Amino acid sequence: MSYFQSIGKIQYEGKGSDNPLAFKHYNPSEIIMGKSMEEHMRFAIAYWHTLTGAGSDPFGAGTAHRAWDYADAMDTAKARVEANFEFLDKIGVPYYCFHDRDIAPEGNTLQETNRNLDVIVELLEQHMRTSGKKLLWNTANMFTHPRFVHGAGTTCNADVYAYAGAQLKKSLEIGKRLGAENYVFWGGREGYETLLNTDMAFELDNLARLFHMALAYTKEIGFEAQFLIEPKPKEPSKHQYDFDAATTIAFLQKYGLQEHFKLNLEANHATLAGHTFEHEIRVAAINGMLGSLDANQGDLLLGWDTDEFPTDLYATTLTMFEVLKAGGIGKGGVNFDAKVRRGSFEDEDLFLAHIAGMDSYAWGLKAAAKLIEDRVLDGIVDNRYRSFNDGIGADIVAGKATLHTLEQYALQNNPIKNESGRQERIKLVLSEIIFSV
Amino acid sequence: MSYFQSIGKIQYEGKGSDNPLAFKHYNPSEIIMGKSMEEHMRFAIAYWHTLTGAGSDPFGAGTAHRAWDYADAMDTAKARVEANFEFLDKIGVPYYCFHDRDIAPEGNTLQETNRNLDVIVELLEQHMRTSGKKLLWNTANMFTHPRFVHGAGTTCNADVYAYAGAQLKKSLEIGKRLGAENYVFWGGREGYETLLNTDMAFELDNLARLFHMALAYTKEIGFEAQFLIEPKPKEPSKHQYDFDAATTIAFLQKYGLQEHFKLNLEANHATLAGHTFEHEIRVAAINGMLGSLDANQGDLLLGWDTDEFPTDLYATTLTMFEVLKAGGIGKGGVNFDAKVRRGSFEDEDLFLAHIAGMDSYAWGLKAAAKLIEDRVLDGIVDNRYRSFNDGIGADIVAGKATLHTLEQYALQNNPIKNESGRQERIKLVLSEIIFSV
Amino acid sequence: MSYFQSIGKIQYEGKGSDNPLAFKHYNPSEIIMGKSMEEHMRFAIAYWHTLTGAGSDPFGAGTAHRAWDYADAMDTAKARVEANFEFLDKIGVPYYCFHDRDIAPEGNTLQETNRNLDVIVELLEQHMRTSGKKLLWNTANMFTHPRFVHGAGTTCNADVYAYAGAQLKKSLEIGKRLGAENYVFWGGREGYETLLNTDMAFELDNLARLFHMALAYTKEIGFEAQFLIEPKPKEPSKHQYDFDAATTIAFLQKYGLQEHFKLNLEANHATLAGHTFEHEIRVAAINGMLGSLDANQGDLLLGWDTDEFPTDLYATTLTMFEVLKAGGIGKGGVNFDAKVRRGSFEDEDLFLAHIAGMDSYAWGLKAAAKLIEDRVLDGIVDNRYRSFNDGIGADIVAGKATLHTLEQYALQNNPIKNESGRQERIKLVLSEIIFSV
Amino acid sequence: MSYFQSIGKIQYEGKGSDNPLAFKHYNPSEIIMGKSMEEHMRFAIAYWHTLTGAGSDPFGAGTAHRAWDYADAMDTAKARVEANFEFLDKIGVPYYCFHDRDIAPEGNTLQETNRNLDVIVELLEQHMRTSGKKLLWNTANMFTHPRFVHGAGTTCNADVYAYAGAQLKKSLEIGKRLGAENYVFWGGREGYETLLNTDMAFELDNLARLFHMALAYTKEIGFEAQFLIEPKPKEPSKHQYDFDAATTIAFLQKYGLQEHFKLNLEANHATLAGHTFEHEIRVAAINGMLGSLDANQGDLLLGWDTDEFPTDLYATTLTMFEVLKAGGIGKGGVNFDAKVRRGSFEDEDLFLAHIAGMDSYAWGLKAAAKLIEDRVLDGIVDNRYRSFNDGIGADIVAGKATLHTLEQYALQNNPIKNESGRQERIKLVLSEIIFSV
Repeated sequence: MSYFQSIGKIQYEGKGSDNPLAFKHYNPSEIIMGKSMEEHMRFAIAYWHTLTGAGSDPFGAGTAHRAWDYADAMDTAKARVEANFEFLDKIGVPYYCFHDRDIAPEGNTLQETNRNLDVIVELLEQHMRTSGKKLLWNTANMFTHPRFVHGAGTTCNADVYAYAGAQLKKSLEIGKRLGAENYVFWGGREGYETLLNTDMAFELDNLARLFHMALAYTKEIGFEAQFLIEPKPKEPSKHQYDFDAATTIAFLQKYGLQEHFKLNLEANHATLAGHTFEHEIRVAAINGMLGSLDANQGDLLLGWDTDEFPTDLYATTLTMFEVLKAGGIGKGGVNFDAKVRRGSFEDEDLFLAHIAGMDSYAWGLKAAAKLIEDRVLDGIVDNRYRSFNDGIGADIVAGKATLHTLEQYALQNNPIKNESGRQERIKLVLSEIIFSV
Repeated sequence: MSYFQSIGKIQYEGKGSDNPLAFKHYNPSEIIMGKSMEEHMRFAIAYWHTLTGAGSDPFGAGTAHRAWDYADAMDTAKARVEANFEFLDKIGVPYYCFHDRDIAPEGNTLQETNRNLDVIVELLEQHMRTSGKKLLWNTANMFTHPRFVHGAGTTCNADVYAYAGAQLKKSLEIGKRLGAENYVFWGGREGYETLLNTDMAFELDNLARLFHMALAYTKEIGFEAQFLIEPKPKEPSKHQYDFDAATTIAFLQKYGLQEHFKLNLEANHATLAGHTFEHEIRVAAINGMLGSLDANQGDLLLGWDTDEFPTDLYATTLTMFEVLKAGGIGKGGVNFDAKVRRGSFEDEDLFLAHIAGMDSYAWGLKAAAKLIEDRVLDGIVDNRYRSFNDGIGADIVAGKATLHTLEQYALQNNPIKNESGRQERIKLVLSEIIFSV
Repeated sequence: MSYFQSIGKIQYEGKGSDNPLAFKHYNPSEIIMGKSMEEHMRFAIAYWHTLTGAGSDPFGAGTAHRAWDYADAMDTAKARVEANFEFLDKIGVPYYCFHDRDIAPEGNTLQETNRNLDVIVELLEQHMRTSGKKLLWNTANMFTHPRFVHGAGTTCNADVYAYAGAQLKKSLEIGKRLGAENYVFWGGREGYETLLNTDMAFELDNLARLFHMALAYTKEIGFEAQFLIEPKPKEPSKHQYDFDAATTIAFLQKYGLQEHFKLNLEANHATLAGHTFEHEIRVAAINGMLGSLDANQGDLLLGWDTDEFPTDLYATTLTMFEVLKAGGIGKGGVNFDAKVRRGSFEDEDLFLAHIAGMDSYAWGLKAAAKLIEDRVLDGIVDNRYRSFNDGIGADIVAGKATLHTLEQYALQNNPIKNESGRQERIKLVLSEIIFSV
Repeated sequence: MSYFQSIGKIQYEGKGSDNPLAFKHYNPSEIIMGKSMEEHMRFAIAYWHTLTGAGSDPFGAGTAHRAWDYADAMDTAKARVEANFEFLDKIGVPYYCFHDRDIAPEGNTLQETNRNLDVIVELLEQHMRTSGKKLLWNTANMFTHPRFVHGAGTTCNADVYAYAGAQLKKSLEIGKRLGAENYVFWGGREGYETLLNTDMAFELDNLARLFHMALAYTKEIGFEAQFLIEPKPKEPSKHQYDFDAATTIAFLQKYGLQEHFKLNLEANHATLAGHTFEHEIRVAAINGMLGSLDANQGDLLLGWDTDEFPTDLYATTLTMFEVLKAGGIGKGGVNFDAKVRRGSFEDEDLFLAHIAGMDSYAWGLKAAAKLIEDRVLDGIVDNRYRSFNDGIGADIVAGKATLHTLEQYALQNNPIKNESGRQERIKLVLSEIIFSV
């Protein structure tokens, strides 16, 4: 059966096309800088938004009614699997991602919950075999159930911590079975509501212990996924421990975990932390920690995680520029952690929104490639820092300078001449590049 | 001569006093938890705000006319020294802090600038000897002069970098000569305006190089001050590299500097980064990095650094609670990096504002001491985490648990019972404690 | 039966009390400036948070299980009525407030929904008669159901608009029957998601039309409640039309509605709009539009409506100061539009949280009264503006000045002398006043 | 003499041009929807940023040294006039704007200040006559001088108010003499720092009185400029009275001024108030209050007014879309209230930045015209609201509906069907339109 009967396969029809159900920029097989677009992007669908979400918000019930919504939770879960692969097929995306609780309902006991998971994982495995679709990453939802009210790996309740460990174990096993290329830790409620009742040091120590246990277990079972932490500064907690890339790196360094983890960066999480997405990618990249991307966009006039589909070409261009400069996304991918707006509740919107996101990323990739091939920004940067290529500049870079030699140089070097950074010009050029590809 | 003729010594007159020029809560010799208030706080005056600032803002000229404003820059600088020590004496503060350019005017050459500094440092030294006042910390202003338009330690211009090194060398020498107990690095323009023209990795490498040179030089000259980095997320740069405590710790870890630096934390910088001040102190403390405090407060409805005098008792109480829990402020202190509002342009406001800040901190110290002595928060915390004291909880803490043992435990442990975090109650209790001291 | 068996009546036990289930500051019969505390405050309970809410958030299910949660929706609704009056009785609050959908479940048709309402309203009426508890205000929830996805009075769908009209009609009838002293319009989804598909002018015209219809109908049925609009700047919509007090006043003036409406102001909505609560109250008061208060507090480091119980004494003091200066809250009241934190899921927290809120408001009322009786702020203000009492100042106020007379005066009046605004001093005094009552 | 010797006239060279000193999109004589680009835009240069500003910020001195900076203030002022007209000529802009204090230095007395103004105004008049350049608007700077520390029209000091009146009188006379097409009131320090010492009602009454005096005086002297108020929510004051468009409209309505004023809207002021620029323009337009635009852009991750040159094509397109839909900019224009970044301190940057801004606006104008000509958004809007064209919808719009008729309709109209708002699709289309022009 089909859950999206009226929708055919979405294909590339090019810029001139008037068909809203076609890609104008995303052509998977187009070669950009020596690799196909599909390889550059490794697009993925977020199960929670696309298959499980229905458009509820804190002030309203879900607006979307999907053909796979049945009265029985397991029936719905099975139907979602069908719908997932139909969607992946029609939209032409090779990967998907899920939390354990997205794919199968929680039972009355952990045993029952795990049995539910086994049934669905079996189904997923079959579909993956026949369709060739792959799991970019999976993760454990340790924040929705009331038991996690005070956190999971950072809970104040050892029983909850043990439960989280058990859930994590199962999730790692599922990842192994389905061949997940990455495994993500998003600290759902790993944070605090008020310092007044919180032992931050203890909680962070416990979180590190859980990560070490996870590492030991993946080694034991031979699960070779890349571990990823996904920073977010706030929401649902007042303060999330993995605030941003730098905070997460400090944590990993402190606990000797930096060799085993990379980062899964999300655009809207970056802006909630006061950074641009490209800033977070750059920080990760220069620390060797760029893992994967959650592609979406926030509304900077709103103070919460809106998880909109990415359509701002400035942002997608600069994102792909950072990715290309970092040598590509590696084992990671571009996962649409994005949901259709509550007012976009029709099935067709699921396609239109992913088309908008994929086309915007494809457009951004092309513009980024042009920026690199024409050395637009690299040329500017090389020129700006050229004074470090020889003389006192070269000494500094070589580690030969001391405060003595710098002082000697400075005392005889007067006046100093700076050059303009030319921001305004560069920004217009950026528009011209984006809109020329 | 006197620069504050109408003002006498400010003394403790206690709660009932109607005298606006008296402390009602700050009694330096009062013993709190075994130490005098003066030792707990180690208050300091910020030269740049109190002696040098005049109330200008981006939309207006300075409003304050001080008796030490002369036509000649060196005359003014000398008069400021007199005013500084008169102020320290009258307000009863033992420490002061300065940037090099606060105390002496920039000359036409580095040589002339350094000579100006020598003259003033000589004067400061004399006054310190006679008054017993001390230098909490000094620092180098490497952001005001146009040469630093693109940064100092992170500039794109090697000539500027060399100049910064020379200026830093002189500042370290001044710190040594005046017995500074700490030396602060605030990354004035160490950040970027746009990633489009910025090589972040290169700039951070260079910054670390400068810090290593500074360490080598202090060793050479035997300057034993504690080195402090002062995080700030933005302003003047669009993005400052030392965004917050965690970011700075990540940087120090990466470059092998964490043993040699601690943090100088500022309340308003914390809130600009999306944190409470107590959060930043806690993060520093649990990483062994609590160095010193810049006491002020921001306006959370405004998006820039307002540097207001601290008057919110909730904030001062929680600040001093974190400090006491961390074992005290050590070699650091509580420096009023705060300026009188532009509308508070009379000399008397300098005193009233410092009285407001010092009294609010003294009040907070007493309330914090009561929180600790009555185990108000510690009792709550101990009770909340008690499940980690034995059984599976103790195993987790001891590093004995694995995902296997956690799963075994969780499979037979159903249901889980959590307890309320009682935030609302705790917040009312906090008001009551503050009130009662 | 009792839904709060373990809880007895909450009473005033005074400052020294250690009983967490007692008021230390709220003594309903205490006389403040000639009126009892109860009359000053007219406290109300928010049905939606206290009886209907369970602690869910966008990332998690409800954490609270209440004794009145039954399998059948109407059974739960009836039990909630019992619980409501038991709660009002035990906590000692005279008023409550509700949306229509809080008290009775939505049926399959409007007819069935209205029948559900009739059953519950009958029950409420009985309880009000026997208990003496009163309805401060009611309102219609025109935002939760999916039909209101694009708004109610500002929807793009005439069928939805008609439904909203019908729902509003019923709500007005309920208000009349239960003797509601006010009727509130909160523009749940009256706003827009993107201007790209929105006709703002048309939507606002339609909203005004609905208000005019409501006015006509209340006249027809003799419902004498004060109409109130509740401003909020964003959430759930990206942009809510009733952004803040000033925006709402502009709307009411444009459509000739200003004589018939006042404002229901909420603390957390004020801060989301970039204002303090006291700012919004002042704006309303000087326009004769102060209607009622939704008492809560936000977290200024978070960008969404957190609806916390108010515990900041600075805020409660300044709120009650504005109310007292405006001549009191009139037909309005102080409604706790506040929810226990998700982690405060025990029944006892409902009481502790309301105690925290009521005590903080009582404390604020006393401090505000002292500010007024001692003319602390009024004295400052009168002194600051005294130059308008005679001479050119009096001419200006009397409307006699022209640019000619001002110029003549200014040309001979040199130099001008200003005086300090003394903010820092005033803020310390404010702490002293708050903590002295 | 020439102040920009190396720069020739900037002309249109079209998209393909590699010349950074040429327009690629701005071709003044190109006809768009029946009017030349020049007529659509009426571009203006901001004297304060381009001629007077030097790049200082709260943490640093100015970085730009201009050829017209002389030792004597009047010599500099005269040279600035020359530079202004040379700049207008070379960049091809027909209008300029200024504050009185931008063009001439303040003297020791008001008399001397006015004499300085007379000298410069005479020069400006001569240049305007010969060059054909025009004054879009002028205004009075009543915020920089210390006398305005507590405001001008809202000061607590009657002497300052009188001075402001005198200054305003002179400014109106200058506007008349130079044929200003508009006169702007930006409330520099018309706001408050803290409500604790502020009589808001009194201050707003006084502000309205000043506006009435200004109206009377313009009538007297026959100055026919359009009066404009420029909203801004904060900075320099903690709270500015003219917070946003709606707040300003409420003020004008209250004081009977709405017939005599329109709004000068600024992009960065809109975002500081929590709105998009297009929101503010729409609000103004539907109230008949669209006056003129201050074109710039802010950085939404920063909390202050950055006044960047506008380069975001989404923003410029939506801005010009709103303007075209409102029937054009009328007597107003597009004034670049934008400054080169502190790091863009070379003269050439002045040209490059204005080229970036003008080209981005020209590009936006073309895209907006295409949106309108193709009825891209209008078609969507018409379709969305079509249910109001007949039946119950038409009754509502005609004012014939009552709550009775709405209820009757709703009771028999079940279920209701909504349609998707299609935001994601529309946003991709917007990118495609911008790209295609």
